[in-house]
Order: sequence, then structure tokens, then C-alpha cells
Amino acid sequence: MDCTKAANKRSLPNDAGDGLEGKLKKAYHGNNYMKEDSDGCTSICFGLKEEVGILARTLKLFEERGVNLTHIESRPSKRIPGSYEFLVTSEAPPTELEDTLDSLKDRVTYHQILSRSHDTKDAVPWFPRKIKDLDEFANHILNAGGNLESDHPGFTDPVYRERRKHFADIAYKYRHGEPIPRVTYTEIEIKTWNTIFTNLSDLFKTHACQEFNYVFPLLMENCGYQPDNIPQLEDVSNFLKDCTGFTLRPVAGLLSSRDFLAGLAFRVFHSTQYIRHPSKPMFTPEPDVCHELLGHVPLFADPKFAQFSQEIGLLSLGAPDEYIQKLATCYWFTVEFGLCRQNGQVKAYGAALLSSFGELKYCLSDEPEIRPFDPEKTAVTDYPVTKFQPIYYLAESFEDAKEKLRTWTKKIERPFSVRYNPYTQSVEVLDQKESLKDMVTSIKGELSILTEALDKIH
Amino acid sequence: MDCTKAANKRSLPNDAGDGLEGKLKKAYHGNNYMKEDSDGCTSICFGLKEEVGILARTLKLFEERGVNLTHIESRPSKRIPGSYEFLVTSEAPPTELEDTLDSLKDRVTYHQILSRSHDTKDAVPWFPRKIKDLDEFANHILNAGGNLESDHPGFTDPVYRERRKHFADIAYKYRHGEPIPRVTYTEIEIKTWNTIFTNLSDLFKTHACQEFNYVFPLLMENCGYQPDNIPQLEDVSNFLKDCTGFTLRPVAGLLSSRDFLAGLAFRVFHSTQYIRHPSKPMFTPEPDVCHELLGHVPLFADPKFAQFSQEIGLLSLGAPDEYIQKLATCYWFTVEFGLCRQNGQVKAYGAALLSSFGELKYCLSDEPEIRPFDPEKTAVTDYPVTKFQPIYYLAESFEDAKEKLRTWTKKIERPFSVRYNPYTQSVEVLDQKESLKDMVTSIKGELSILTEALDKIH
Amino acid sequence: MDCTKAANKRSLPNDAGDGLEGKLKKAYHGNNYMKEDSDGCTSICFGLKEEVGILARTLKLFEERGVNLTHIESRPSKRIPGSYEFLVTSEAPPTELEDTLDSLKDRVTYHQILSRSHDTKDAVPWFPRKIKDLDEFANHILNAGGNLESDHPGFTDPVYRERRKHFADIAYKYRHGEPIPRVTYTEIEIKTWNTIFTNLSDLFKTHACQEFNYVFPLLMENCGYQPDNIPQLEDVSNFLKDCTGFTLRPVAGLLSSRDFLAGLAFRVFHSTQYIRHPSKPMFTPEPDVCHELLGHVPLFADPKFAQFSQEIGLLSLGAPDEYIQKLATCYWFTVEFGLCRQNGQVKAYGAALLSSFGELKYCLSDEPEIRPFDPEKTAVTDYPVTKFQPIYYLAESFEDAKEKLRTWTKKIERPFSVRYNPYTQSVEVLDQKESLKDMVTSIKGELSILTEALDKIH
Amino acid sequence: MDCTKAANKRSLPNDAGDGLEGKLKKAYHGNNYMKEDSDGCTSICFGLKEEVGILARTLKLFEERGVNLTHIESRPSKRIPGSYEFLVTSEAPPTELEDTLDSLKDRVTYHQILSRSHDTKDAVPWFPRKIKDLDEFANHILNAGGNLESDHPGFTDPVYRERRKHFADIAYKYRHGEPIPRVTYTEIEIKTWNTIFTNLSDLFKTHACQEFNYVFPLLMENCGYQPDNIPQLEDVSNFLKDCTGFTLRPVAGLLSSRDFLAGLAFRVFHSTQYIRHPSKPMFTPEPDVCHELLGHVPLFADPKFAQFSQEIGLLSLGAPDEYIQKLATCYWFTVEFGLCRQNGQVKAYGAALLSSFGELKYCLSDEPEIRPFDPEKTAVTDYPVTKFQPIYYLAESFEDAKEKLRTWTKKIERPFSVRYNPYTQSVEVLDQKESLKDMVTSIKGELSILTEALDKIH
Repeated sequence: MDCTKAANKRSLPNDAGDGLEGKLKKAYHGNNYMKEDSDGCTSICFGLKEEVGILARTLKLFEERGVNLTHIESRPSKRIPGSYEFLVTSEAPPTELEDTLDSLKDRVTYHQILSRSHDTKDAVPWFPRKIKDLDEFANHILNAGGNLESDHPGFTDPVYRERRKHFADIAYKYRHGEPIPRVTYTEIEIKTWNTIFTNLSDLFKTHACQEFNYVFPLLMENCGYQPDNIPQLEDVSNFLKDCTGFTLRPVAGLLSSRDFLAGLAFRVFHSTQYIRHPSKPMFTPEPDVCHELLGHVPLFADPKFAQFSQEIGLLSLGAPDEYIQKLATCYWFTVEFGLCRQNGQVKAYGAALLSSFGELKYCLSDEPEIRPFDPEKTAVTDYPVTKFQPIYYLAESFEDAKEKLRTWTKKIERPFSVRYNPYTQSVEVLDQKESLKDMVTSIKGELSILTEALDKIH
Repeated sequence: MDCTKAANKRSLPNDAGDGLEGKLKKAYHGNNYMKEDSDGCTSICFGLKEEVGILARTLKLFEERGVNLTHIESRPSKRIPGSYEFLVTSEAPPTELEDTLDSLKDRVTYHQILSRSHDTKDAVPWFPRKIKDLDEFANHILNAGGNLESDHPGFTDPVYRERRKHFADIAYKYRHGEPIPRVTYTEIEIKTWNTIFTNLSDLFKTHACQEFNYVFPLLMENCGYQPDNIPQLEDVSNFLKDCTGFTLRPVAGLLSSRDFLAGLAFRVFHSTQYIRHPSKPMFTPEPDVCHELLGHVPLFADPKFAQFSQEIGLLSLGAPDEYIQKLATCYWFTVEFGLCRQNGQVKAYGAALLSSFGELKYCLSDEPEIRPFDPEKTAVTDYPVTKFQPIYYLAESFEDAKEKLRTWTKKIERPFSVRYNPYTQSVEVLDQKESLKDMVTSIKGELSILTEALDKIH
Repeated sequence: MDCTKAANKRSLPNDAGDGLEGKLKKAYHGNNYMKEDSDGCTSICFGLKEEVGILARTLKLFEERGVNLTHIESRPSKRIPGSYEFLVTSEAPPTELEDTLDSLKDRVTYHQILSRSHDTKDAVPWFPRKIKDLDEFANHILNAGGNLESDHPGFTDPVYRERRKHFADIAYKYRHGEPIPRVTYTEIEIKTWNTIFTNLSDLFKTHACQEFNYVFPLLMENCGYQPDNIPQLEDVSNFLKDCTGFTLRPVAGLLSSRDFLAGLAFRVFHSTQYIRHPSKPMFTPEPDVCHELLGHVPLFADPKFAQFSQEIGLLSLGAPDEYIQKLATCYWFTVEFGLCRQNGQVKAYGAALLSSFGELKYCLSDEPEIRPFDPEKTAVTDYPVTKFQPIYYLAESFEDAKEKLRTWTKKIERPFSVRYNPYTQSVEVLDQKESLKDMVTSIKGELSILTEALDKIH
Repeated sequence: MDCTKAANKRSLPNDAGDGLEGKLKKAYHGNNYMKEDSDGCTSICFGLKEEVGILARTLKLFEERGVNLTHIESRPSKRIPGSYEFLVTSEAPPTELEDTLDSLKDRVTYHQILSRSHDTKDAVPWFPRKIKDLDEFANHILNAGGNLESDHPGFTDPVYRERRKHFADIAYKYRHGEPIPRVTYTEIEIKTWNTIFTNLSDLFKTHACQEFNYVFPLLMENCGYQPDNIPQLEDVSNFLKDCTGFTLRPVAGLLSSRDFLAGLAFRVFHSTQYIRHPSKPMFTPEPDVCHELLGHVPLFADPKFAQFSQEIGLLSLGAPDEYIQKLATCYWFTVEFGLCRQNGQVKAYGAALLSSFGELKYCLSDEPEIRPFDPEKTAVTDYPVTKFQPIYYLAESFEDAKEKLRTWTKKIERPFSVRYNPYTQSVEVLDQKESLKDMVTSIKGELSILTEALDKIH
């Protein structure tokens, strides 16, 4: 489920209740949320010069001071090869950790404090460093499970609410690396899917971008995309993994923008597994499995779109709150509501468009205003969440959009760059020149492969 | 377990029985093996132009001809973006598949036949394309489980044989993506480990390369490397994953060189889980968990060594038999028995050395001959498997060794190059110029990150 | 002197006579010109496999057939290393050359026909391959020397006309590699310069882009930019050479767009050396030394602008006529009349603006329309040549403009790419995969330097 | 003429007089020379932040202190874009300059002192920054013109001595950018050339490397390499310029190793123009035009060899004396006396071999010892200058040799890296991270060209 798409609920503009929208939007865009989240996960990551016994001694130091660590691990440092890197996590306030760190100061080659609470000077907003860290998010759900708002179409339906609770439980229990539990959808659920699938299928050929139409038949052949079958997230996730390395991860409810975007940095998409209420098949007040499977999944199979999405994620890691909000807005106007130009025609690639019969037709009509995607401006554009968008942004290509994002974001005040290491499925912080040398070496390796391959191309 | 290290059995030269050695060596180096493996797995991979209904039609074509397919999948082609790529696997002889392929010939943009049996013209020796394909190897074990040779120290010990069978079962059942089952080692087993661990620990500081000594304390702190505890493969595998993306995979017995090396292409190391017979703690006629954990694991945590190892693996994929034998010999003289120069001193980095008290001391003495690593020559050097090596090869650095390998292997007669995609954990075949453009684009992406990072380094 | 700037004459809109403008514009933009230029320089460049005696035999072949060659040279081929490359130039029609080429067809590894007349099938429009080839342009001047049009301010001034002839002679005689002859400007000429220099100097600080204002003081200190001194082209050319490798080359009159742009590919700017008529110091119907020195020179000292300008040049080589016209229009709206955004403000970087007191003020006023630079649209924008521009195009940065140009021009129908080799000062045609390998190798070399340098940065 | 090839005199081992050799060898290898060269050229290069009037003020500062500057220039800084870079040259001792520099210290963004005399702390040995700086070397000739040693074959021949003086004068007067004066060689001189040319021609096919044999026919067709014609340096230089950008520059006598190698950094080869004494056509105690044209020139037309040679030059710039000596020794064993392996055979590529009938046969015989080129060892190998070499070093390829050099030289204690900018024909010092960003940008530009070219290759 993504942070920005509750707006989906407005498949018919007048269907949408204002109350929820307003609340949600505030919830996942506002700084408020961030401050409330004071359960205080603080991580410190620091480097220590190689030295006999340094590992054991360091551990002892934290023990002696009675700092209650929830996690400690030591690894070879990628920032300064030859240093050991420690990652220490605690629910203690950052200050306590810093004291202990001080006592190591002569041997520390670098350090970085990540904190969920923002009251610490010098702390960077917490972000996951390894794909496994995404498990943390399960504890930071804004709104989940069977707790439906009173204007939700399923609010008074106890069976539906029970079902929602069931799906939420699957997601809560899910841990990285496990297969996503398969679900036997009910006949009613399948019927809902069928209605949506059938209605949209016809529209795709003319309204969806070519990347979508290229992948869709593959999903039908390989992942059970059929009118009478709701595909299993596990099958879809495996298919995406083969295509671009993207994977799905079940989620129990709304994540904050920061957390949701962070998932993308790891090519992980947080996906709902439940389906909307059968009473209103063409409408949902929140993302559901139809939105994910029909709107998002096809595009994540495209390498350039995958890269674009990951780029948004990487740019968000450790960024200041106001910047997260801008990125989330860019996400809104691209991944959710984006249009692109192809062979002189405008097509839809945004998931919220591709999963909404009404807006998919509307967005390519003469009604809305279309502007060229320009992160500087897009990021500060206001948008309604309860009706069709009055403005859409048009990308020349996913690569062009990625480059524009990157250029724009050179201005983020983040004292480090990051790079994703797909081997270790972790984010490397680039703030030491030593780490750059490894990058250059790896690029040279790529070029060697290129030279060899040039010999052998047909 | 690796293909080349049965030689390990000779921790004392005179301990080794000639018979077994000879047999084994023949088994995993000889072409004989390859020919015997006639259970005929054939895969065809081909590209088809995007076209309405092409997926379904293609499937039907195979059905109509009664070709018995064990697997079929369609994916976006990475070789020619815009094509669909089919991977079809069958136990039928390649000829049958080719017939069907012929009927598609107007639409096929490229095709490649991979076959385990070598009687097909134009077929390339079969190799795994995705990390999941490594599951195939479980069916191609040369020698496994409790079937010990008569000169094995545990041959007459029914308890030991039962235990070996147990470990073999774990490996047979193991499938990619699962956690490696944890094992409760017996007191006797732990005692054997203790003896070896204690003896070797002292030697490491002076005899092992610095990469080894840098990582070893991390293994003690993070993975339970202790005199009285045998580390669990799962913990070690997770640690390696964090460091370099290498993972361990339990194996039931000897793999062919081809299969074993192929694992390395995916940064997967096939590891035994059982321990040697307690009657001879300083000797083992075959690789065991002590050899893996003390010899191999520390080095796989080093990025440059990991890259070197993967490079050997990538070079082996689809290569002719005689070339596989040469690569296996290079593997023998590097990953198993390699020496390297560090700060003017010679140190050991080969796993067979680092896990053998006797040979670790011997290899740095004046006795053996030391030659500079030179793949051209190293690859054709004969070596004994029943006594200490008379010749060792010295690498200047892992990177230098990798470069030398790569230069040498430009001569392999393989009509394609390969590149590992760590996102999809799959091997991409580079034989179309279209695929090179994506590489160049990705390199440019890396350079953009580099530019940005340069701004922010301390 | 550049192809597109006769428009400069309109320093006061109403001063300009329509007749000349129309004629000139047609002359250097129209296809007509190209067809008139039938003095038929044809070059054939072809590769021959290394073979004993092949060089002498090939030469003989041309002789035997009585083909009148004006030039023949043989060089190591850069397109297919190991081939010899011949460059044969003749005034004979291409057909005659092709016949001879046919007789070599078994040994020809590739060939390319360059022709000034466009009546040959398969011929590519002629372009210079080496910097020395620019000497050819001296014979293709559209309008030069003392032949002034009747509405020229100096038309009735015999002294001025004599002086113009003198400057034209210098340019006609000039050959690549020679120092540009120094000129003793007369007192009257210096007075004209003084008026312009003094008027503009004050405006630069507020109206010119920062690259301009950064370089201008260097020109004052190093090249004699002073109110009472007209700088010598030779000094300025040497200064530019140090900064970016750009050099000036005196030119006798108007070049065709094709020829003028081709010069930029070699980082050569064709520059006038005469000054406008003293009767109208603030007006000139054609480019003069004030326009070159005050408008163009400062920007050519900027590495990114130099690259941008060269890029236009490289894109023009061998391109079809209609594409040349589009590129010339892009040149017009950037190098001559370009605006750019800097720190939130709009500044001028176009030479025609920077050398015109009136238009420099006007272009930053509210009057004209400002559009974002977008080659697709810019290239087909019509523009007046007799009054201030109603539309200007705004670049975000020179690099951005360069990238946009490059992206746009992927669509040129040119069956080859080119790369400039600054060591040999020649253009390499990239249409063989062999030549790409050298590029990759050279990039790897750059990366090695980068790695080493990273070690040593402060 | 090069620094290391006086050894050429021994075309027959017993012909060589010890005295001269000893002296020469000491002269151009010894540190002594460096200290004697106390005519004290000191250059300071420093960066100043952009600031109104800073250029004029800085100039004044030097004036006020009475520092006698022989040269001052200001340029845009490439090390820190946005700074101005000053290059100030003086014959005053460095201390005086430093004082003035001190007074600027608040505004200096970086500085570097280059000095020919080594008594200054922090000074780097002087090296040319631009190709024009090579003009300086004309004043630092060790031994030149008609001053022949008493054992020289032409010592008692006044006509020959006069002729030598003539050639020396040409070289003294030569300045960068000028064409090399053409020489009418006498009949006697041509006869000497004829003897050597005829004798060697036959041997080349079997003894010279393939790069040599590939280029030689081109020299015959294009540059007048004929038995009865001595080619003109200017023609040869132009040919080389087309091939690799190498050019020849006439030199009046022996240069120091440091100066000679520095020329190579700019792809400039200092070449003699005179010919040996006719009395001994098969012998010369010093390099002459036969050695240059037959030995050196063909290889400089090969791109990889050109790069290798330039690399030696770049590594020498500003390096400590002891390191210069090592590089000169590497030069000796490669460019002068190198052997290489080609298709399993050993061939000669060293100029001293290729221009010596006797040693060319000897070097490929069984007599001498052949060792693999390994800069670490090669650089400290002693060698005789009065007889055939007992040891030769064998390169696997020019590229391999270049890479080995580069790897080895990572150890030079030079606080900066350098990069050659072929556009400006100048050396850029890389010691600021800002300068690296430009490199990365330029590499990305190359990759863009590569992508485009991939589309168009045949």
C-alpha cells in the first residue's frame, strides 16, 4: 500500500467523504506524524580502526554503561575499507548512546546517528540500511486492519471487517525473506475483481503506455491475471523479481510517506492484499489489491520505470521532512498519476489512473491541464484527493524523468549521498572518499565486460 | 562442498589412500562424467517479437506437437528490449524442440539451446540462468550421503554413517530462498571442531592473509565462531550476504566442476554441513564444515575476493568441457591453495591451506616452489591430490588475479558474454547490441552518483 | 564570422534594409546554395586489409583509370584497426571514383563517399575530417572582401573598402597552423572600438552571464582588452587555446551554415578581423571584430560552453540539408541570442546580444517573450533578421542545453556517429564496432586516473 | 634525441669507447646534473577567488616587492572552477616569491611551487604545464652542436662538425608551433642513410613487431621513406599527428632524463635531425636521424604505444629524482630495447634494436636473457651502455605494459595526480575534488557518444 494513494477512493468524485481524506493526507504528509512516533528507535553507525580485541572491548563499553541495546552488529566497513563498522540500535535516547560513543572518540573513524525522534542535534532521520530493516515498518502502521472509518463502504459489514483483519494479520506477521502467504479469495471477491478487470482490459490498449501493454500479456500467461482469478502476490512478486528485482511485501495499513518511499529504495513495493467492498466495485476509498495488481505491478516490470521508482526511494533516505513531502508529491504526480508521451501521443502510466475506469478516460480527454514534468514545480503543486486531478504532469520518458529528479535533488541538504548495493541489498552511505574508489573500480569492471561483449555481439 | 577439494583428505601426506583420490579426481575433472549425465535436461531460450496473442499461440505450438515440457516461462527480453523471451525446458531430446522452434522461425529474433547432453550440434552446455535454477543441482550429485568409501575413517562407524545420511537429507530437501536448517551438533562433533579451531587459531595471525585476519574477529563476534561452538550455516550465510552478497547453500555430496563453479557465478557457495570423523580430527578425505567455515568463509566476506570468485563462476557458464577443466584448475590453485603477497611477505588465502594445520605451515616454508599466478600456465599445471602441493601460485592481489583471469579468458570459444544482474539474481547473455546500450546507461547512472557523491565527501 | 549573424546589422530596427537581409538569409540557409556549389569536391574514404604491396597497387589502380586525384593519403584505420584507410579526393564526379572502388571491392572493408554536390546516391554531404581540411573553406566564401552591398554604411568610402579588401586578403591566404597576422589598427578604427567597448562595459556586470563576467577581466589582463586597444586575434586565440582548446581563424566573408558549423566541431571559430564603418559605430550590417571579441570570445573560454558549441558542430557533420538548417537555427537562438538562468535571474550569453548595446538592454526587459530552450521547437522557430528578436530561448545551463541537443539529435538520419579526437584534431567516424572498443578502453584509462586522483585530493 | 640512447653508439660492442659513455650516463641519470642546473627557473601557480579587481591587485603586489617576474599569466582555474589561476615565473629564488604569496594567503585557494633548483622546501621539481613550455628545454641542453668528443668518428672532420653546428642551430631556434625546417641532405648523407635503410629493411619483416610492419609501408607511401631519400621531420611529424597526435621537435643535443621524459607527456618526441658520420654507417655514438626515423617513428604511429609512451612522460612530471631515474630505466628497457610477444613469437619493438642491424639479430637469438616486463624489477636493473644488452624485458602488449607501469607507480610520492588535456595541450594537476567532477562529466559525455554509436554500428 502506498502513502499517497488513499485518494484512490474517489473513483467517482462525489463519492468521496471529505473527512477521511483530510485526516489521511495530514497523517502521511504532516510532520505531526513524525513527532508522534516517539517510540524512539535510534541507531548509531560508526567506524573503528582495526585493532586486536576492539570488537569485544566496544561491546563491553556499552554494557558497562548500562545502555540497553536492542541490536548490535559489526561488519567490515564499506565507507572506509579496513575499518570495522558497528551498527548499534537502542530505544534509549540518542544522548545516552552519544556518551558512550564519546569514550571511543579516538578510535572512531566516522559516525552517523539515525533517529526516529527528531529532537537530537546532528541526527539524521532514521532510515533502513538493509532490506531486512523494512521489517521495522510493521510497527509503524498509521491505520490498519479492520478499523474502518464510518464512511467506508464496508463499515457495517462484519464479514468484510473480519476478512480485513485476516489480511492485516498476514501482513503484521510477515518477515523479509518469507514467501507471501497465498490467499484463497472468495467467490464474492473474485466477482469484484472480475468486474474491474473486464472493464479496464478494453481501455488499456488505447489508454495505457506501451510498457504496460507489453507486460500485461506476460502477467496473464505467467501470473494468473485472468477475469476469474485474483493473482497471488507471491507469484507476481517472483515475476517482478525476474524482470527488475522489484518485490512485493504485504502491508497491514498506511505507512508514513517516509517509510513507504524508503521501501522503493530497496525495490520493495508495499502492497495490500485485500480487495475493496463488493458493494461498490468501481470505487475504493483506499488502495486495494486491484489497484496494486492492475495499476502498479505492470510498470514495475519495466527496467527504466523500476529505476525511476527506486531513485525516488533513494532520494528520500535520511532527507528532511519538508523534502519528503516534496518527493511524495512527485511520487503522486508520476507513479500514481503520471502521463507520458509516446510516438506523439499522450498515454497513462500512473497506477491510480490505470486502475480507475473513470479517471483513465478523463485524463486523456481535453478537460485536464497537462504540464511538462519538472520536479521543481511538480513538487510544490497542490492536488485534490477527493476528485479527478485538474492537472497532470507529462514525462518525456522514464529516464528523462529520473534525470530531472536527480538534477533537482542535488539541492537536498543531506550531508551524504547513497548508493544501493544490490548484492548485499543494502544502502551504502557515500561520505568518504575511500568508498568512491570502490565505485570507480566497479565501473571499470563493467567496462571490461562491455569491451568483451562488443567482440561477441551479432 | 567444492569440486576440487577432496584433496583435503591429505592433512598428513602418508595418510592418504591413493585409490579414492584417483577415482574422485577423475570423477569431477573428467569429461566422462559429463557424458554420463544423459538425463537430458534441455532448455531453449528464444526471443519473439511483440505481437498480439503471440504468447498463447507459442504455447499451443508446443502442445500440438506433443512436446513434453517440464517448464515454460515468458519474460520481457533483456537481450532485445521489446521482444518477449521464452524459456522452455524439456526432457525431450533437443531435436524435438528444435522442430517446434523451426515453425516459429520467422518471428524468432534470437535463440539459444542449452543442453546437458552434448550430442546436439549448436547446443551450449546447460547452465543456470537464475539463482533458483541452482535447485537443479541437487539431482546431479556425484557421491553423497552415507555411502562412504571403504578407506574412509568413518566407513565402519554406523552412527557416523547415519549422521552423514541426515546431513545429506537436509541438503537434498533444501530449496533456494529457504533458511538453512539449524543443526544441533553432538558433543563429539564439537570436540572435533574444538581441536581444529584451537590448533589453527594460533597460526592464522602469522600465516593467513590480512583479509582473513580482518574478518575472523567479526565472525567470532557475530556468527558464533568459538572453540566450543560450531557456527550455523544460516548465520554465516546471512553475515556473508551483508558483506558481499555471497550466500551458502547446503550440498549433499560432490558436484561436478561445471555445476560447482556455476554456483559461484551467483555468489553462491555450496557448503557441506557435516563434520569429519572424530577418530582423525586433523584429517579428512573430503571437505567438511571445518574446511568450509575456517577455510572458505572468511575470504568470501572480502569484496575483491568475492568478485574474483564470482568471475571464475561467470567464465565457466556455457564454456566447453576442456575449458571448465582449466578453470577448475585455476580454482584449485587460487581459492583452495592460493598464496598472495602482502607488504612484501607471502601469506596464504587458499581455503585448503587455511583449514590444514600441516600444509599451512608447509606452504610458507622454503620447501615448495612458488610461481607467479598466470592463468595461461596455472590452468594446465598438474597437481597431486594425495600430498602437499609441490607448487603454489602467488597472486599480487585479488584484483590483479581477476584481471589476469579475464584477459586470459578472452580466448574462450564462447559465442556470447555474460553479465550478472544482482537485482534479478540472474545471468544476462550479452550477444545483441541492444543489451549493451542498457549497460552503458547503467554505467552513466553510476557516474551520476559519483559526481553527486564527490560534492559530499569529507 | 558566423553564418547566422548578419542579422546583427539591426542594432536599430529601422536602420535595416530589407533587401540584403532577405538575400543573405536565403543564401546561407537555403538548399539553393548547396546545389550551386558544384565545383564538385568528392572524397572517398575506404579501408583495405593489410596486405603486402596493397598501398602501391591501390595508387596504381587510380592512375591506370586516369582518375585525376587532387589528393591521396593512406593512414592506419581507426574504424577497423589493422586496416589501412585511404582518403582519396578528386574533382571528378563521384561515379568515376566509384568505378575504381568497385575494382577493389573484395579488399574494401568499408567505404564512405563524401561529396559537395548532392547528386550522388549514397554520398554523404562533404565534411572536414581533419582540422587542416578547414583550409578548404577559403574557396567557398559566399560574399567577401570589399564587395559591399549598396546599403552598407561604407559603400561609398573607398578607404574603408580598400581596408576591407586588405583584411579579406589576410584571411584568404591564411592556412591552418600559422599565427594569425597582427594588424595595426588605425586611430579611426580604435575610436570606433572605444565607443563600443565603453558603452558595453558598464552593461556587462548586470546583463551578462557569470561565465562572461568571470572571463572578461582575464581578457583585459592577458589579451589587451582595453578601451584604446583592439586586441589581436592571435593573442585571443592563444588565450582561448589555453582555456578550452578553442582557436580563432580569420575568415574572408560569409560561410555557408554547413561550413561555419563544421568549424565548431574542431573548436575553431571563424572570426572577422575588420571593424565596422566609423560612421555608425553602434550599428553593423554584418559581424565585425567587435562582435567577435566582445560577444563570442569570452564564452568560448568557458569549458561547458565550449563543449556545447562543439556539440552543435559535431552534430552538423554530414547531416542532411534540412537538418543543417535546424541546427543553424538552434545556433542562432543559443550562441547568438541565448539567455540563461543564473541564481534565479535571467542573463544574456548570446554573442549578438552581448555585442549590441540596444538589444542587450531590450532582451532582459519585459518586452520580449522568453521560452525554455527545447531543440525540437527552437529549431523550427522563425526569426526576424532586421529587428530585435520577439522571442528568446532560455537555457537552464550549458550542460543541460548540450544534453537536450544530444537527445533531440538522436533522430538525425545520419548512418554514423562521430567523435572528435583532440590528439589528432580529427573527426572519427563511428560505424564499426571495432572503433567502439577503443573508446571503452580510453574511458577505462580515464577511470584509472580518477582512482589514482581520488587518493590524492585534499 | 632521447636521454637514454647514447648507448646506441655500440652497434658493434667493441666499437664503443668507455669514456664518453660513462660521462654521458652519469650526466643524464645522475642527480648531479639536476643540482648544477641552478639557473633557477621557479614557477608558482596559485588560485585566487574571483573578486573585483583581484587580477590587477595581484600583479601590483609582485611589482611593489620588486620581484622580477619573467612571466605572469592568469587563467580560469581548472583545479577549482570559479577561481582564477595565476602562473608566475621568476629567476628569483623561490623564497622571494613565497613572501609575496604569503601576503595573498587569505585569498589563495591553493598553490604549488615548481622549481628547477631543489633547495626549496615544499617545491616540486619544475615541469612544463603547457606544450609551449617545452621551448624552455632549448636552454638546458647537456651537450650539443659541433662539440664532438675526441673519440667521435667525426671529431677530426671539419665539414661534418660544421654541418652538425648547422643542425644544432635549427633546433636552438625552433619554437613550438613552427614547421620544422626542411633540410637538403647531401649526397654523402643520403648514401649513409641508404646503407642503413637497405640493410635493415630486409630484417624488419622477420624481426620487428607487427605494429612496426603495419606502419612502415604507410611511411614509404606518405613520408618519403625510400632508400635514396631521407624523410623530412616535418612530413613525418604531420603523419604522426594524424595517427596519434605525436609530433617531433628538433633538439640540439642531449636533454636531461627529466626534460626528455616530460616531452613525452605532451606526445612530443625530441628528435635529432643530423646523420651519423659517413665513415662508420653502421655505428653511431649517439642518436641520429636514422635511429629516430627507423627506430622510433613507426611505433609512435600506433595508438597503444603512443599511450604507453605518454604514460611514462606523465608519470615523470614533478616526480622526485630517484624516481625519474627509475622511469628512465623503464624507458630504456621498453621504448629503446623492448621485446614483445606476438602470436607466440618474440619480436622487437625497441627503437635502439630496430635501428641496429647487429643488435636486432642478436636480441632474438638464444644468447640474451629474456625476462617478463615488471616495472618494479625492470626499473632497478643495471645495464651496459657499451655493448649489446645481456637482458631484455618482454612485454605481453603495450596496454599490459602501460597498466603495469601505472600500478607500479601508484607508489610514487607525488602529492598530486596529473591528467593531460589534449584540447588545451596542457597538463592538469588533480589535487582538488572539484577537478574530478569535470572528469566524471567528461566520461559521461563519452558514454553518451558510445550509446549513440551503438545504434549505428554495422
